[in-house]
Amino acid sequence: MARAAPFIHDRPAAEALAAWEEACEEAGCPERVETVRHPLDQAVGRVTAEPVWAKTSSPPFDAAAMDGIAVHASDTVGASETSPVRLDGDAFALVDTGDPIPGDFDAVVMREDVHDVDGGVELRAAAAPYQHVRSIGEDVSAAELLLPSGHRLRPVDVAAAGAAGATELVVRRRPVVTVIPTGDEMRPVGAELGEGELPDTNSVMLAAQAEAAGCEAHRFEITPDDPEKIAAAVRAAAARSDLVIVIAGSSAGRDDHTAAVVAEVGTLAVHGVAVRPGHPVVLGVVHGERPDAPGGQVGGRAPTPVLGAPGYPVSAALTFDIFAAPLLARLEGAPPPEAPTAQARLTRKLASTMGMDDWVRVRLGRVEGRLVATPLPRGAGVLTSLVRADGLLVVPAELEGHHAGEEVRVRLLRGVGEIERTIVVTGSHDLVLDLAASALRERDPAVTLASSNVGSLGGLTALRDELCHLAGSHLLDPETGEFTLPYLERLLPGRSVAVVRLVHRDQGLIVAPGNPTEVTGIEDVATRGLRYVNRQRGAGTRMLLDHQLAQVDIAPEAIDGYRREEHTHLAVAAAVAAGRADCGLGVLAAARAFGLDFVAVAKEPYDLVLLEHTLEDELLTPLWTLLESDDFKSAVTDLGGYDTSETGRRIR
Amino acid sequence: MARAAPFIHDRPAAEALAAWEEACEEAGCPERVETVRHPLDQAVGRVTAEPVWAKTSSPPFDAAAMDGIAVHASDTVGASETSPVRLDGDAFALVDTGDPIPGDFDAVVMREDVHDVDGGVELRAAAAPYQHVRSIGEDVSAAELLLPSGHRLRPVDVAAAGAAGATELVVRRRPVVTVIPTGDEMRPVGAELGEGELPDTNSVMLAAQAEAAGCEAHRFEITPDDPEKIAAAVRAAAARSDLVIVIAGSSAGRDDHTAAVVAEVGTLAVHGVAVRPGHPVVLGVVHGERPDAPGGQVGGRAPTPVLGAPGYPVSAALTFDIFAAPLLARLEGAPPPEAPTAQARLTRKLASTMGMDDWVRVRLGRVEGRLVATPLPRGAGVLTSLVRADGLLVVPAELEGHHAGEEVRVRLLRGVGEIERTIVVTGSHDLVLDLAASALRERDPAVTLASSNVGSLGGLTALRDELCHLAGSHLLDPETGEFTLPYLERLLPGRSVAVVRLVHRDQGLIVAPGNPTEVTGIEDVATRGLRYVNRQRGAGTRMLLDHQLAQVDIAPEAIDGYRREEHTHLAVAAAVAAGRADCGLGVLAAARAFGLDFVAVAKEPYDLVLLEHTLEDELLTPLWTLLESDDFKSAVTDLGGYDTSETGRRIR
Repeated sequence: MARAAPFIHDRPAAEALAAWEEACEEAGCPERVETVRHPLDQAVGRVTAEPVWAKTSSPPFDAAAMDGIAVHASDTVGASETSPVRLDGDAFALVDTGDPIPGDFDAVVMREDVHDVDGGVELRAAAAPYQHVRSIGEDVSAAELLLPSGHRLRPVDVAAAGAAGATELVVRRRPVVTVIPTGDEMRPVGAELGEGELPDTNSVMLAAQAEAAGCEAHRFEITPDDPEKIAAAVRAAAARSDLVIVIAGSSAGRDDHTAAVVAEVGTLAVHGVAVRPGHPVVLGVVHGERPDAPGGQVGGRAPTPVLGAPGYPVSAALTFDIFAAPLLARLEGAPPPEAPTAQARLTRKLASTMGMDDWVRVRLGRVEGRLVATPLPRGAGVLTSLVRADGLLVVPAELEGHHAGEEVRVRLLRGVGEIERTIVVTGSHDLVLDLAASALRERDPAVTLASSNVGSLGGLTALRDELCHLAGSHLLDPETGEFTLPYLERLLPGRSVAVVRLVHRDQGLIVAPGNPTEVTGIEDVATRGLRYVNRQRGAGTRMLLDHQLAQVDIAPEAIDGYRREEHTHLAVAAAVAAGRADCGLGVLAAARAFGLDFVAVAKEPYDLVLLEHTLEDELLTPLWTLLESDDFKSAVTDLGGYDTSETGRRIR
Repeated sequence: MARAAPFIHDRPAAEALAAWEEACEEAGCPERVETVRHPLDQAVGRVTAEPVWAKTSSPPFDAAAMDGIAVHASDTVGASETSPVRLDGDAFALVDTGDPIPGDFDAVVMREDVHDVDGGVELRAAAAPYQHVRSIGEDVSAAELLLPSGHRLRPVDVAAAGAAGATELVVRRRPVVTVIPTGDEMRPVGAELGEGELPDTNSVMLAAQAEAAGCEAHRFEITPDDPEKIAAAVRAAAARSDLVIVIAGSSAGRDDHTAAVVAEVGTLAVHGVAVRPGHPVVLGVVHGERPDAPGGQVGGRAPTPVLGAPGYPVSAALTFDIFAAPLLARLEGAPPPEAPTAQARLTRKLASTMGMDDWVRVRLGRVEGRLVATPLPRGAGVLTSLVRADGLLVVPAELEGHHAGEEVRVRLLRGVGEIERTIVVTGSHDLVLDLAASALRERDPAVTLASSNVGSLGGLTALRDELCHLAGSHLLDPETGEFTLPYLERLLPGRSVAVVRLVHRDQGLIVAPGNPTEVTGIEDVATRGLRYVNRQRGAGTRMLLDHQLAQVDIAPEAIDGYRREEHTHLAVAAAVAAGRADCGLGVLAAARAFGLDFVAVAKEPYDLVLLEHTLEDELLTPLWTLLESDDFKSAVTDLGGYDTSETGRRIR
């Protein structure tokens, strides 16, 4: 390949961030955004730019803390049931809670303890001095420090400031972030997509991340892969922003121009960080023409930080969190944002590249009283791994990974309560589980069913290791022809295991509409040299294939595509639909979802396996109720290829 | 007292919420707000109203995962360093990361492994089938469940939905909340306040809380304490809202009309809950005239939930969290919001009323490796307790409280990281600590200094029990005339303790401007019968008073106001400034802050006491640096009455 790759570093994230901040400082970027004065109601969410000292006391007077009467405590000395004290005229005053204590009364007697007598009141107990009196300044005294600077204002903060005499607060304005999507193949979301084109979802995501971080976000139109056009866009964006984010082109391919553009129109501080996903990051400073710059550098060329984010969506999202978020917090003078963390046990071994921080997305669940973390797919392009993640596990550069069962600290992306109310299903993939997850949530938004597709065998192993509540399995035992049950003695010896039938389902070859290759069964795949798409090792469907091949004595190597592994029925169907394969084994519902044809091969039971003592767990009750419901069964039947006659039945 | 109090219940919070929801259902309130269709970028923050199934696969084609060439893996079999394979013309195609794999190529070779030769390329290793190919649907396959209904959309979610073919999402619209402030004594924030009048900060706070919960919030003008006007306002608000909040008047005083108004214009479901603060809550349903109601009940009288919030600000804020927030989440079809929690050790005994859930605000800090929780003032009117709180400890109705040192679970209001970077100072109050807190934060927003005013003695005890990092003390030993040091052997026997001088300061009698009572010293207070304002037990300043009284042989009972206890110098000054007391002992700076006069009584050292092994703690470094700085010393001197010549010096 003719063109030499520009150098990409592997700078540790903290060092890269520091280098970026240093470059910003050297270039003369403002350290903080400007201060503005906001009325209380508009100040919520902003960061204080100066400490807030109380101007007045709150309450601003001694106030009654009860409904009743204000008295002089000294007048009530000696009062008792047998010798009540009588107060007339000026010796007391009616007060309600919150009223100023009139005159020099120094105590309040509750209404319940005041007895009306002709022309006055009678007390049958002495009042202690200052009883039921809220002192002036009980909440806050004038001149007291109410809020420090650098504090992000919450509703209670502005209310307290108002009670202490503030009507406006001096805060930092929102930082302005401009996102520039680039790429010849990108089209705006909603536009018709041609061959090889992609919707520009990254700029929507990054702008929303900036807004969630308290910024004002703008999105530019998509700029093609042309260095001059990108440079012009960056300059224009820099002129009106506190941070410019260029999406994609941050690597070192033929159409990757961000690093060169930044170097040309400003300073390239960092190209490449030791973070995965997110390696090809560009950090620098650019000079924008800003006649009306927010920094007030009128007519000058004001410097603005620029971040070149990778185009892979997980990389783009994490790059924002790792680099943009702390920079933006610094501009607002606020402490960097941070996620709550929790300790969890890793469900399986996790290898990690030395020298790179590995940001692994994990699903969490509370199983047998402990939080367990299951790593999700790690590809930088698998945005659903971030969507489905309950937490992030950062494996630091100096580690080669973690053992299965190791206790790790996880940054939480969902609340622990929500995680604890999650039914964790691990094992084989079936569309009925998706349907159940959706139906459960519709019945009660507090109930979540999360399924990880690791194949039937992986599910049973996870159940054995107490890493899931339910294992989804349809594992064929070639010797007995039975499903799942023969494996339980082998994999979970001595454990009391229950099995609940989910469905019977048709498995078959998913083929293009009209079955153009006229395939009739597995045998044809080998003999006709068709392109097959397989499932991953440990998947029941793969074992079904192996079983079928063995029966007709065909070696796996004879199948073109045996090594093309997908993790779900739908992914198999997607490959066939795209014409990348002629067929693959899967369920009828997956074929239907893509408008494909289907050649039935076998009917099999799909079961949920669980430890018997958890059968009555409150967590699982909504699922058992769902499986009994006719609505749900008919929705399953509508998917096609499912038989619900035994759905919900305990078969062991 | 003539008028009988309407009945106020003590319903447990969960029961009250259920009763409210039941009343809403019976009255025909909509269970959910309507669905709307939003483009992706406007859907962020909203809750999905239906499950999101992928429409297309992502990536939508088999794509190159590396820059390089696409090949047929079968063409490369046998390639090695010694027998390279040469590919010409159509046998390969250049691809960049993300490009569709052209034709039926089935593998990608990285650019680094491709060697240009005349008219073609040479490979020195075989390519495995499907290597460096991202399968169609690797991220998500068409027809897969992407998001369940009832899910609050984050930036990653809408990006993933966009990648899976969505251009709009069906979500619930924001619920509409209208806040009605009431009360003859209330004035809008910013208005001139007359005697006994208060700024209406509660409505600002509650509207901001509603917005933070994802709602559209409106504030009505202040309605006077007039049942008919309140009823009219409630009806008008109900006509355009999903929830109406009436502030104050929820109790049973003469001017408390909310319960009666709700009963009259709708249904009163609950009046009074077993929650402290927040007891006098009103929950009900009202019928608004809503010709253009959001529920679509055109022309009818549509029912709307109403919440009567207590006027005490802490009660108002917590009432929103306990009752309004779950109701609003239900309207959006989302799970109820929840705060992260942490385990902490209680620094002191906490008594609680049986039969009431006690919502105690606590400060948190990491001391000697453990999270410790110090209860803040518990009054319903002390909003600063909520401002300063790092967490909430709910003592359930069935408990009488907790022991000192007990492990309790706390709902976090700040991030654990921020809490762990907090310098916890417990003990005597001094304005210099406020100044230091503010200055530290200005230098680095990640550094927090939190001081709890429990008096010198309380501070040293907290240090002994490892509940704080620093104890602020100016404790006079009457026998030796020395400060603080004599107490260390007594209170911290056998411990290695370091003492760092903060300041010397003038203590004296704070008196009205011009010293109208012509007080010259403590003796005058007793002999002239002046109204005194005292500090709480354990405060060094109170011990100074006791010492001074003992020296002139005056009994404490001879002092009018000896039992009026304030917790800070500023609160003492505030009482004098308001004319509620003639004098009180405190520092010059407090007198100055209120424009009061000052009669010097003593000069005393104020010290920071700490366990010696923590002297070099990284956490404390910014404070020691600050105490050395000339800027800080001159700011302290400017307060008046302080001598900084020994500031920062280790005196033991």
